[in-house]
Amino acid sequence: MTDPLPTGATIGILGGGQLGRMLSVAASRLGFRTHIYEPGANPPAAHVAHRVTTAAYDDLAALAAFAASVDVITYEFENIPTAALDVLEASHPIRPNRRALAVSQDRIAEKDFLTGLGLTCAPYAAVNSLDDLHQAIARIGTPAILKTTRLGYDGKGQARLKTPADADAALAAMHGAPAVLEGFIDFSHEVSVIAARGLDGSVACYDPGENVHKDGILSTTTIPARLSPSQRTDAILLAARILNALDYVGVMGVELFVTRAGLIVNEIAPRVHNSGHWTQNGCAVDQFEQHIRAVAGWPLGDGSRHADVVMENLIGDDILRVPAIAREKNAALHLYGKAEARPGRKMGHVNRIVK
Amino acid sequence: MTDPLPTGATIGILGGGQLGRMLSVAASRLGFRTHIYEPGANPPAAHVAHRVTTAAYDDLAALAAFAASVDVITYEFENIPTAALDVLEASHPIRPNRRALAVSQDRIAEKDFLTGLGLTCAPYAAVNSLDDLHQAIARIGTPAILKTTRLGYDGKGQARLKTPADADAALAAMHGAPAVLEGFIDFSHEVSVIAARGLDGSVACYDPGENVHKDGILSTTTIPARLSPSQRTDAILLAARILNALDYVGVMGVELFVTRAGLIVNEIAPRVHNSGHWTQNGCAVDQFEQHIRAVAGWPLGDGSRHADVVMENLIGDDILRVPAIAREKNAALHLYGKAEARPGRKMGHVNRIVK
Repeated sequence: MTDPLPTGATIGILGGGQLGRMLSVAASRLGFRTHIYEPGANPPAAHVAHRVTTAAYDDLAALAAFAASVDVITYEFENIPTAALDVLEASHPIRPNRRALAVSQDRIAEKDFLTGLGLTCAPYAAVNSLDDLHQAIARIGTPAILKTTRLGYDGKGQARLKTPADADAALAAMHGAPAVLEGFIDFSHEVSVIAARGLDGSVACYDPGENVHKDGILSTTTIPARLSPSQRTDAILLAARILNALDYVGVMGVELFVTRAGLIVNEIAPRVHNSGHWTQNGCAVDQFEQHIRAVAGWPLGDGSRHADVVMENLIGDDILRVPAIAREKNAALHLYGKAEARPGRKMGHVNRIVK
Repeated sequence: MTDPLPTGATIGILGGGQLGRMLSVAASRLGFRTHIYEPGANPPAAHVAHRVTTAAYDDLAALAAFAASVDVITYEFENIPTAALDVLEASHPIRPNRRALAVSQDRIAEKDFLTGLGLTCAPYAAVNSLDDLHQAIARIGTPAILKTTRLGYDGKGQARLKTPADADAALAAMHGAPAVLEGFIDFSHEVSVIAARGLDGSVACYDPGENVHKDGILSTTTIPARLSPSQRTDAILLAARILNALDYVGVMGVELFVTRAGLIVNEIAPRVHNSGHWTQNGCAVDQFEQHIRAVAGWPLGDGSRHADVVMENLIGDDILRVPAIAREKNAALHLYGKAEARPGRKMGHVNRIVK
């Protein structure tokens, strides 16, 4: 398929969380229907989707039936098993493509790819044994952070090393999984670029946002980020280089550390990204619609912003503040319809329009 | 129910057209689920609703089952049969209330209500016979317009009288239905106020928009409307008076003619209104969310606008212009997912952000 997908077509989305939910709403604005594939019961995306398949990622018959019912396939999370991708891709294109998934599913593959492009990452070394870890510490130093190479997000599957003496405990926290040691970066702040690339190779980026994390989870994104004009240009060119190198189709989140030595890539996510939620209230075409436009072969929005926004995540008990937020002027609520507010669980976000 | 409806609750919506579709999306942003009741198969709202009941408005068992599954009931159109309302209201509140429906279902009841409030309407007279019509013409003059008192919208069920000689043909076009003759108003332009009233009696209005119709169907709404500060205040106070008099809960569209003698009420619609679609891209809380907030007993958004917008309806073959509109900067598309583009059918709209 290289022609634009016509209105009325169905977009298959792997994953039924809040990102799938907001992708489904955006798809509806372009007249598309969505079909959600999600192992868990009653996922947030089910409330606003045309169809939902509840099945595991190793249910090959369910995957094949899902694929047969849709016109193109995309996803809201990157850890989709390879066997599932094989079944799906037999009938329809998966966008973004499998190279993007392969690179982002493995922290070492990702860093090798990025440094291969001439971009700067934090110093890193593969760790599969205590011996590896001691050698890595000797080269990279401490403080450092040990992470499993696969899976893990929002601070899970990670262990900090304040001194070399923390090596044993950190390695134990990996539970035998392959890991990577990353050096700490002396950065002033973190920004992210939400970048999109269309089926025709065109690239459009939103203005970079500035991110603040709490307990390893994104707390706020402020638009615009504190960046000099040249830093801003660097950030956008760097993101475009990554998308072009992957022949990428869709939206990608690129997290960057701002340092005196320049921009350092923290990580990339081959999907719509929490730090791009502000676009829902700042842009004519938000990141969710931008992603749908890309995977449907439509022209991209240009990413221009008509309002400044501060996005705040509502995590766990933050949901109890909703009645007060509902009374704020210029505050746009986006709740995910999750029944239970567990600690660390993303329950919604609020976009405060500041201009 | 007077407490605010909790996140996770289900809002029942009568009618599955584009208004129900956009209400459903807005409800999702507040964490609500929706259940759509619609006689037609595959309605636009079904693509973004949690549940859909396909049944007629005289299917009392289906209505009762629908009512039992929801926490509050609202609607996207005003011509709901009274017998259906009786069944529904036995288990849950209907918002806006039945008085608002009764008034707006009958053009004469509406005009009697509005003039009873001291507001100005076009001169009007009930017409149930040719004799009535001749008397009405003698009093009101021509040109005038004859309309059925019930049903009819977007120019349907109407006949224009250029001269008294058109009386026979105009009456024949009513097919025996009770009708009302309305005098023509010498107005400079039409504006509308999208007004909301909460369960606590608070009222919030959006800035009035200026409407242009083509062939009896809304074509564009431009924000802000051409109004002097005092006209703007008059328009908003007038809308608030209507809502208060009806003990109204929800969003109402109030269409006004701007004349040298002041504002004249054209008609009211007890629901979200086509001329309020611009709020989707100009306000933190759009008219759809505002309506959901009201019927759910939540605090209203204040209606403030962060961007100027021109809304254009995409009617019939206008849908063919979508590929070009998708390339425009600052144009936000909202398509309704309707399969077939018949002449006069509303297929979507575009909000162009001009500031």
